[in-house]
Amino acid sequence: MTERNIAIEAANRDAVEDQRVEIVERKGIGHPDSICDGIAETVSRALSQLYLDRVGHVLHYNTDETQLVAGESIPDFDGGEVVEPIYILIVGRATKKYNGQRLPVDSTAVSAARTYLRENIPALTLGTDVIVDVRLGQGSGDLKDVFGENNVEIPMANDTSFGVGHAPLTETEKIVQAVEMQLNGPYADNHPVIGPDIKVMGKRENNSIDITVAAAMIDRYVADLEDYADAIENIRAFVTDVAHRHTNREVTVAVNTADDYDTGSIYLTVTGTSAEMGDDGSVGRGNRANGLITPNRPMSMEATSGKNPVNHIGKIYNLLSTDIAESVVADVDGIRDLQIRLLSQIGRPIDEPHIADAKIVTESNVNLQAIEPEIRAIIDNRLADVTSITERVINDELTTF
Amino acid sequence: MTERNIAIEAANRDAVEDQRVEIVERKGIGHPDSICDGIAETVSRALSQLYLDRVGHVLHYNTDETQLVAGESIPDFDGGEVVEPIYILIVGRATKKYNGQRLPVDSTAVSAARTYLRENIPALTLGTDVIVDVRLGQGSGDLKDVFGENNVEIPMANDTSFGVGHAPLTETEKIVQAVEMQLNGPYADNHPVIGPDIKVMGKRENNSIDITVAAAMIDRYVADLEDYADAIENIRAFVTDVAHRHTNREVTVAVNTADDYDTGSIYLTVTGTSAEMGDDGSVGRGNRANGLITPNRPMSMEATSGKNPVNHIGKIYNLLSTDIAESVVADVDGIRDLQIRLLSQIGRPIDEPHIADAKIVTESNVNLQAIEPEIRAIIDNRLADVTSITERVINDELTTF
Amino acid sequence: MTERNIAIEAANRDAVEDQRVEIVERKGIGHPDSICDGIAETVSRALSQLYLDRVGHVLHYNTDETQLVAGESIPDFDGGEVVEPIYILIVGRATKKYNGQRLPVDSTAVSAARTYLRENIPALTLGTDVIVDVRLGQGSGDLKDVFGENNVEIPMANDTSFGVGHAPLTETEKIVQAVEMQLNGPYADNHPVIGPDIKVMGKRENNSIDITVAAAMIDRYVADLEDYADAIENIRAFVTDVAHRHTNREVTVAVNTADDYDTGSIYLTVTGTSAEMGDDGSVGRGNRANGLITPNRPMSMEATSGKNPVNHIGKIYNLLSTDIAESVVADVDGIRDLQIRLLSQIGRPIDEPHIADAKIVTESNVNLQAIEPEIRAIIDNRLADVTSITERVINDELTTF
Amino acid sequence: MTERNIAIEAANRDAVEDQRVEIVERKGIGHPDSICDGIAETVSRALSQLYLDRVGHVLHYNTDETQLVAGESIPDFDGGEVVEPIYILIVGRATKKYNGQRLPVDSTAVSAARTYLRENIPALTLGTDVIVDVRLGQGSGDLKDVFGENNVEIPMANDTSFGVGHAPLTETEKIVQAVEMQLNGPYADNHPVIGPDIKVMGKRENNSIDITVAAAMIDRYVADLEDYADAIENIRAFVTDVAHRHTNREVTVAVNTADDYDTGSIYLTVTGTSAEMGDDGSVGRGNRANGLITPNRPMSMEATSGKNPVNHIGKIYNLLSTDIAESVVADVDGIRDLQIRLLSQIGRPIDEPHIADAKIVTESNVNLQAIEPEIRAIIDNRLADVTSITERVINDELTTF
Repeated sequence: MTERNIAIEAANRDAVEDQRVEIVERKGIGHPDSICDGIAETVSRALSQLYLDRVGHVLHYNTDETQLVAGESIPDFDGGEVVEPIYILIVGRATKKYNGQRLPVDSTAVSAARTYLRENIPALTLGTDVIVDVRLGQGSGDLKDVFGENNVEIPMANDTSFGVGHAPLTETEKIVQAVEMQLNGPYADNHPVIGPDIKVMGKRENNSIDITVAAAMIDRYVADLEDYADAIENIRAFVTDVAHRHTNREVTVAVNTADDYDTGSIYLTVTGTSAEMGDDGSVGRGNRANGLITPNRPMSMEATSGKNPVNHIGKIYNLLSTDIAESVVADVDGIRDLQIRLLSQIGRPIDEPHIADAKIVTESNVNLQAIEPEIRAIIDNRLADVTSITERVINDELTTF
Repeated sequence: MTERNIAIEAANRDAVEDQRVEIVERKGIGHPDSICDGIAETVSRALSQLYLDRVGHVLHYNTDETQLVAGESIPDFDGGEVVEPIYILIVGRATKKYNGQRLPVDSTAVSAARTYLRENIPALTLGTDVIVDVRLGQGSGDLKDVFGENNVEIPMANDTSFGVGHAPLTETEKIVQAVEMQLNGPYADNHPVIGPDIKVMGKRENNSIDITVAAAMIDRYVADLEDYADAIENIRAFVTDVAHRHTNREVTVAVNTADDYDTGSIYLTVTGTSAEMGDDGSVGRGNRANGLITPNRPMSMEATSGKNPVNHIGKIYNLLSTDIAESVVADVDGIRDLQIRLLSQIGRPIDEPHIADAKIVTESNVNLQAIEPEIRAIIDNRLADVTSITERVINDELTTF
Repeated sequence: MTERNIAIEAANRDAVEDQRVEIVERKGIGHPDSICDGIAETVSRALSQLYLDRVGHVLHYNTDETQLVAGESIPDFDGGEVVEPIYILIVGRATKKYNGQRLPVDSTAVSAARTYLRENIPALTLGTDVIVDVRLGQGSGDLKDVFGENNVEIPMANDTSFGVGHAPLTETEKIVQAVEMQLNGPYADNHPVIGPDIKVMGKRENNSIDITVAAAMIDRYVADLEDYADAIENIRAFVTDVAHRHTNREVTVAVNTADDYDTGSIYLTVTGTSAEMGDDGSVGRGNRANGLITPNRPMSMEATSGKNPVNHIGKIYNLLSTDIAESVVADVDGIRDLQIRLLSQIGRPIDEPHIADAKIVTESNVNLQAIEPEIRAIIDNRLADVTSITERVINDELTTF
Repeated sequence: MTERNIAIEAANRDAVEDQRVEIVERKGIGHPDSICDGIAETVSRALSQLYLDRVGHVLHYNTDETQLVAGESIPDFDGGEVVEPIYILIVGRATKKYNGQRLPVDSTAVSAARTYLRENIPALTLGTDVIVDVRLGQGSGDLKDVFGENNVEIPMANDTSFGVGHAPLTETEKIVQAVEMQLNGPYADNHPVIGPDIKVMGKRENNSIDITVAAAMIDRYVADLEDYADAIENIRAFVTDVAHRHTNREVTVAVNTADDYDTGSIYLTVTGTSAEMGDDGSVGRGNRANGLITPNRPMSMEATSGKNPVNHIGKIYNLLSTDIAESVVADVDGIRDLQIRLLSQIGRPIDEPHIADAKIVTESNVNLQAIEPEIRAIIDNRLADVTSITERVINDELTTF
């Protein structure tokens, strides 16, 4: 093996935390785009598992194209109804036949998608509110087998692709992430009125942070407008609390700002997702691989969700670069801002990128030269272990959106 | 009201029971065409009920066009799998808006169809083996309201249409009907190995009746070829027994005649319906309104299932003519063969057909003149009560296929 | 070869021409059900030809399930518009791979369907007014090859099926057929205002014939209500004329009887078919194989259009029985009404039906015994030549609806 | 009007042109993702025009969700064939009824998409190789009318959104852009062998630029492997030439690097797009609003194509920020790198963003203070003229991908 091409240099810019204006967004798990990401990735995992179970290694597939067509609903206090179901089309390629064996690719995909919906959008009635359809084209069984339990070889890059990761998160990023996860986690457990379609936008100007939450409220748990107003205020208070855990800056929180109580126009839904009434969705249009949209940072356009985790270099490098960034920051003190890019080299093993390019802003009292060897060693080590990314994806240990 | 135009005359032909060759067929409830009929009619009932519940009367709709696209499966002893789901498209017209109220027409249709499948094709796993989609075009809310609880008026015929009914059933017809119903009823309750896709063909030549049954066997209940052979033989014996209850003629029974035990080519399925592996289906292609296909008798081409039971004259007249024929034969002795046709007259109340035309073969010792007044009275009475057909359809008291 | 089982007997009933009430219907080529029949049969021919061209014989397929979902339109004097396209789904099974060769089955089907629409519904704009989609499941290449240029063997019947044919046509049947064909032929050539969706209903009571025509008028050729009224009156006169060529009975003609000039509710369309505005359609729901719906006569429920002409016994026997009936009547004098039924026998060559069963009403001065040998010879001869049916279907020399 | 919040400051980083590693990508017009972008934007323009023509102002719609499902093809020297058509589903929301008037939204969308395909993927046979379907949900006619010929008011921002633009392009960006446009323009005019699915990747390390082109070759213009090799070499020479027009740096060009002449595995297509054989596509997954993917620069995740150009603040700000950046650089000397971000403020007119935030790297001999007023004036002026963006989009004067 040749030595890996790892470049570590000063970022030559302000840390994002120190930039004057910062914008961060996260589309919660019930947002139409996130639903598509979630289904695409779930279908991908299910197919990986299917291939491992049946033929011992993952075959060629790509399911990164789920399309959601919004339904139509009539939400109402104490419970309305969906009148036209959401239509979800699972799209992609998959190997349907291997060594003469026909594999239940389409059934597996539909089944996985439905299970995912049941678990993640629980207020959605599967038999009435949503139609899950599938169009998986046939891939070629001739394609080289790419992954197997006994196959520890590192695959070759088949495309020029690029991944980028960052660490640590800024305060604003941490808040946006935590708000969505707390609302969709413990808060929702105790307050079923909040649906999973929660969009969180964070905007920081210097030391002032605005958090804007758009939360689809579930109508059956709302008796009237007053009840609704209480629920919103409760969310606002909770979010404010979550935010203050991550910053000492000034925080302002607004929830469902488009509501107009006078006209009765509020963000009420039957199922907890705006997909029920007019918001279409598709894969790769929302959160990046680290769960955030961060216009202050370089981002990859690559849709990570649904891609084959064995041989799709864009997926692997996006997840790996985030993993590397987090590993470095976890182990090395004094880093205020780290960005790492991985650029693949066609025809080379994927643990040997064309370049692994780290740009670092250190704390003011830290000298980059001093910590550079430690950083390099971690990057080198994580690259050597690249295939673990594939395993962790298949085992659902890594999120992609 | 004008006097109804009822014509009663001798049939001037042999009773079907006395014809030399007779053919009768019934596609069981799990046959792809019957699945479509069943869904179409179930969706129709659900929409009628929806309209009654929401606006007090049935609005304009027609759902007589469900299309089933077969899936793909790999049946196997002790249980195989569906690899490509069946795709079912519910097609039709329905009023979606009425007096400013949006009605959940599509959701209701999908939900009704799924419930129907769950109850009637129980071995089908809804989340994996079948996709239920819907394309219901918008009807016009301007169309005259056609039916309501307080509306006892009799609607006008809006089309020239025709219905035909017969009674009594011949022995062969009775056998074909009974065989399917017994197999799909008590027999299936005790023998889950038999799926609901049971096709029964009866052929009588003079006094010899051949009954041919094609029954989709469910693989999870079949251990091996011997087990399969036993199950088939068991069905054969049961069918023979059923047949003899309805005739003293000679009966021969064959089950799954296309099987070839040597090559292992047998009629094994995962779900109990051939829709899983290559047989498409649609509405109105199978059984007529009386549940049979009877080439020896005039039949209406009209698809009865899925049509609006309030104003679709073809549906009403097919059901009514069968109802009349059965009523007459139940109450009047001495009829060997009765056929009644109803022909609508555009612009006239549907209880006043252009002509109600009965053709009768009496028992040899019976004089038609003697029973004619009794027959006429029953026909007249049933016509007067035509709107009860609509009610019975909505209440699921009349089968359409 | 064993001697064929041909039964010839007196019909023991009145000729249909002499029955008191007779009903006949024909759905013209532009009717939504006929559009589906036409596409199904066209796709079938295209696939037969594709297989012959590529592999030398026709492979396994069945395309008898086209579903049409109506569009939405706003017709207007001097030309309106389609606002929601018609959706047509071609459904069926076809062999996509043979001896390692991938065959362009789906493309061929879509292409054939579009060409058919272009030629037969010329006022329909293909790029705007209609979407043609396809779901053809894979058939099995393992199935026995069934037909080839060098393969003169007669296939075996693989199902118990039944075909029925009649000749000669009654006057009412002739009129109904001629009216539609004349209107959709020479008349339409000179009067583009009439669309191809022409439904003709004939009702004869004793010696009085009512012909009711429902004709979709094309809006761009209609300036105003007066213009429309003129066009309708012109059709009425033409149809009356056509009818009188086939009968000396009294004839009444009505055209577009549902029109209401006072409210302006008339049968105006943009494209010449009601498929544009609310009438769905599917295969096998309209005309029988002889182009007519004849409730006075036994009919087969089998959808003839779209079935594989090589091995689908129902299709072949429906076409063959009609062919035989016409041949007999053409060559043998003195037949007033002939019905022939063919019943297949599984496992026997299709030229040896279980029974070929002719029922004849002779002219009053003709003795059946006298012409029986001649009739038998023709039936025997046509049966021997059964494979020519397949060829004529593929060469588009036989219509199926 | 309040004064606009425009912030102009030094970028505090290297110009992208001076960064060590730079990556740039452009998906050509025939790439599956670009096809979706192109259709989405074309449909959007067609709907805007439809609304302007029919009701005088643009109504509520959003068509940014086209999904492409790849087909299957068998390319071959001198011409192969598509065996399974590409399936394109146009998805979105649109107002179908306005003031009682039904608008031909679906037909317009399908028609526009087909015209777009005909013009931009000319080797694609519309009737055979592609199916264009549509699922446009109904928007609400109640939504405020947002744009009209006589309506010069500036709309309010209805969302917190963000746009970002850059100028001038770096050499690598210029090359990538020029290569695709030249190949798909003059080169293709003279060399029909090259299809429109051309993906160009540029990678610069210090002063060395690698250009990698993946070009779908059209089989009917390729006689054999030698012919193919010549065509590729010709493209390579042309691209090298184009590149040198934009840089003095060292340039290396590679075309279709995944080809393997020994196994005959080359990038041959029937239609000139990989959509024919396995590459699905959707909107917003490829080029950003300036036609490039530039991981070295902040990018917006927002899909620009297909969005409503009147009221979608993300679309407007992405196009406007690019427009501003280009205007500034065109008029002001001494700017080496300019980035401008526009952040909307809900409830304020869109010409008054929350902040317009310019970050500038000047040429070494230029003082930012000196040119700051000039820059500010241009930004202010372009913001004031924000509604011209809408007009230019509708008039097809601005590209979105």
